[in-house]
Amino acid sequence: MQNFNDVIERFRETESKLKSLSYATSMLFWDASTGAPKSGADARSQAVGVLSGLGYQMLVNQQMASDLDTLMANLDALDEMNRVLVKDTKKEYDKLTKIPMDDYQKYNMLISKSSMVWEDAKADSDFESFKPYLTQVIDYLLKFADYRGYEGHPYNLYIGDYEDGMTVEQLNVFFDELRERIVPLLKKISDKNKVIDTEFLSRKFEVNLQDQVSRELLTQMGFDLEKGQLKESVHPFTMGVDIDDVRLTTHYYEDDFASALFSTAHEGGHAIYEQNFDRKLQGTSLASGTSNGIHESQSRIYENNFCKSEAFLNYFLPKLKSVFPEQLSDVTTKHFYEAINRVEPSLIRIEADELTYSLHIMIRYEIELGLIDGSIKVADLPKVWNEKVKAYLGITPPDDRRGVLQDVHWSEGLFGYFPTYALGSAYAAQLAHYMSKEINLEACLSKGDFKEITKWLNEKVHVHGALVKPNALIEKITGERLNSKYYCDYLEAKYAKLYELD
Amino acid sequence: MQNFNDVIERFRETESKLKSLSYATSMLFWDASTGAPKSGADARSQAVGVLSGLGYQMLVNQQMASDLDTLMANLDALDEMNRVLVKDTKKEYDKLTKIPMDDYQKYNMLISKSSMVWEDAKADSDFESFKPYLTQVIDYLLKFADYRGYEGHPYNLYIGDYEDGMTVEQLNVFFDELRERIVPLLKKISDKNKVIDTEFLSRKFEVNLQDQVSRELLTQMGFDLEKGQLKESVHPFTMGVDIDDVRLTTHYYEDDFASALFSTAHEGGHAIYEQNFDRKLQGTSLASGTSNGIHESQSRIYENNFCKSEAFLNYFLPKLKSVFPEQLSDVTTKHFYEAINRVEPSLIRIEADELTYSLHIMIRYEIELGLIDGSIKVADLPKVWNEKVKAYLGITPPDDRRGVLQDVHWSEGLFGYFPTYALGSAYAAQLAHYMSKEINLEACLSKGDFKEITKWLNEKVHVHGALVKPNALIEKITGERLNSKYYCDYLEAKYAKLYELD
Repeated sequence: MQNFNDVIERFRETESKLKSLSYATSMLFWDASTGAPKSGADARSQAVGVLSGLGYQMLVNQQMASDLDTLMANLDALDEMNRVLVKDTKKEYDKLTKIPMDDYQKYNMLISKSSMVWEDAKADSDFESFKPYLTQVIDYLLKFADYRGYEGHPYNLYIGDYEDGMTVEQLNVFFDELRERIVPLLKKISDKNKVIDTEFLSRKFEVNLQDQVSRELLTQMGFDLEKGQLKESVHPFTMGVDIDDVRLTTHYYEDDFASALFSTAHEGGHAIYEQNFDRKLQGTSLASGTSNGIHESQSRIYENNFCKSEAFLNYFLPKLKSVFPEQLSDVTTKHFYEAINRVEPSLIRIEADELTYSLHIMIRYEIELGLIDGSIKVADLPKVWNEKVKAYLGITPPDDRRGVLQDVHWSEGLFGYFPTYALGSAYAAQLAHYMSKEINLEACLSKGDFKEITKWLNEKVHVHGALVKPNALIEKITGERLNSKYYCDYLEAKYAKLYELD
Repeated sequence: MQNFNDVIERFRETESKLKSLSYATSMLFWDASTGAPKSGADARSQAVGVLSGLGYQMLVNQQMASDLDTLMANLDALDEMNRVLVKDTKKEYDKLTKIPMDDYQKYNMLISKSSMVWEDAKADSDFESFKPYLTQVIDYLLKFADYRGYEGHPYNLYIGDYEDGMTVEQLNVFFDELRERIVPLLKKISDKNKVIDTEFLSRKFEVNLQDQVSRELLTQMGFDLEKGQLKESVHPFTMGVDIDDVRLTTHYYEDDFASALFSTAHEGGHAIYEQNFDRKLQGTSLASGTSNGIHESQSRIYENNFCKSEAFLNYFLPKLKSVFPEQLSDVTTKHFYEAINRVEPSLIRIEADELTYSLHIMIRYEIELGLIDGSIKVADLPKVWNEKVKAYLGITPPDDRRGVLQDVHWSEGLFGYFPTYALGSAYAAQLAHYMSKEINLEACLSKGDFKEITKWLNEKVHVHGALVKPNALIEKITGERLNSKYYCDYLEAKYAKLYELD
């Protein structure tokens, strides 16, 4: 057994070094996003390239191959943590090695070109110029699926890269229910023609004071600013490099204070997750969210289920009024609540409200699936896109810039990523449903008291990090697999009340 | 020759990767110094350790050993840049490999312990507890000198680590003249008993406005803020990670505005150097200052020779008054000039004025030399220290905290570093002397016009980076080796006028 222990030790040492390399890469990204001079981009990407090359060499070599073989053949002899670390590393190793180097390099060159072409195509609303690149990207994804191997639908491989264990079968059921319940709900809301005045949202709110409010909100939610950092960047994001070092950003607009406020709540949810992994996971790759969907559930639950709730706003609006007395003097909680939760079908995903957002994701899921299984041709994309937008949202894109070309993802080969946004909201609703059986959410939120709430999420979700995979995690907490029932229930109840539907 | 070209190419590729690794390490340091949460220190030092280990492996291996042998045997076949790169890398390689690994690790453990012991010893003014550690550090330095080999005095090795080509012989001549001319000068100044009122320096100056002034000053000096970044840190420093990405920090005190102002001028000098290396050096280790002394000359020349000159203040004080009208209304240029250049012997090096600073360095040089050649015993250090302070500065430290224990350097094994501070001022004076033969400095500075000045330094000093070593550089520019004549001339002239000496 001495020899086997050596193998474990060597494996863990490499795993820990890889984590440090990823720490350094993250820091370069953090620096680049929070004020680094643009002119330094070349030196930075050179350094990122070197770090990534070193990481590759550290993971892909004869020693690691043989160690992984030994460890995978003896999973039963490992404790839980080592078992998951080995399996995760093996998955990553296979992803990197099953694709021939030559193909992989050609693909990376294609992606680099393709995303540049997309940028111009979007600006010019010129789908034709992007078409050959997207076609090639999809050809590669299909080829890579063959190299890597998969069970069932080839799309399972790509969704699995972001959401371990998720399948097309489960996603189809998920989106079927969503389609059946949310499309009619939106129709009812539109037919109601209720006017909600949002003028006050674009009054002038001093950026310094917005920053102060953001920090207070984060602290209230349970984020420890002493073990983290809030800065500003163009696109808000969260980056936990260590349990004791979690950074997040927001973006302040003087004439749109709600944007920073709820993006802080959103990133704060991600950041609280990153701050509360079990100490035993510290310094390993398991000190991370267990999947994109679960991570997104933590941001969405704080943003939508908690901070945009009427209960919380009952507590929070008076606080806001004390900081912005002039701007908010004539605004009631009901008015505030309705304004920030107003439903309005729109063309652009990233500007969508909570309800229609899920339909934007559904459109992308259906198209990705069709492109991968061949039932949708790239050439037909603009037509298919516009039809789906019309069918689900009731509006028609005037051009491809505001249609099929709006998102960068496909030009970068990111298939299977979009669905995790919707899964996040659904996990959030399912968690909130079960949480509300143990905690009086309304009572807590109307006092602005997150203690019990955050403690519940700490103990049920956060502590596990990536040790427990998403399917197992949600079943462990709620006794059932992820499904869209609670999400649809939540949306129906919320909007029926807000729009006084019958 | 094909094979030889392969060797060069492989060498250059490794050199470039090492530069990228050092980029990443620098960025971690920058992050740590400019707002990172303290709690993240463990993860950071873990990452720094991994990067440094990877750098070691990249440099110290059989392939590099054999490549360096080949290249060193064929220096004549290399162009200038490759020749210098190879020689520099060989020097670094020898430094890392000639000391047996076992000794090196024991030494690093000693240093780690020794600097912790020093911290407590300083706080308690308890030299006795530090004594055994310093003794061991010096024993190791002597042992390492034997391993590494040296010519002449063993101290040559250590000064050479920071100032290529500098020797004890040259330093002795340098400090002899300094001692002979500056000690009597200080005596004359002290005897004069001239009272200079510095009360206005501690009035309240808003930090935001100080920051604005710092940025304007940097731009005026010729630093391109678009290709760099100014932030705040506890101890100001400059970090050029690339010609197109040079960062510097300052530190604002509301009740000491001159501190930030002249530390910005100082770091700005370093930063302008880093921004103006020849483009052909970009991405190599030659895109750096050629020595500590030359780097310090660039900071000192902007800080002391330019920004603290009466000519520049004639231009600058009115600008300052427009930003701080209340605080400076009663201050004349003469008054301002005298206040920021006031001479006052003091115990602490880092608080010393321009004149007495060099004497603080001389004390440390004499002691380092004595410790290395055995003429001074560690046990006698407090006594020796206090005697020298009395002899050169005319004052006596009341305790070792404000005496021999004040600096961290020796506890970290940094011998040979202190002299470069004095060399920096001397290089600055020598450069300013020769510059003034071609440029009317007084005319430029009194208009706040740095264009010609910075261009001169760009062309004579900065462009060469580390391609031309310090001795060759100063001789190339001034036609003579570094000496203390111009430095002493400058100090005598400046202070004779300021203190109205005869």
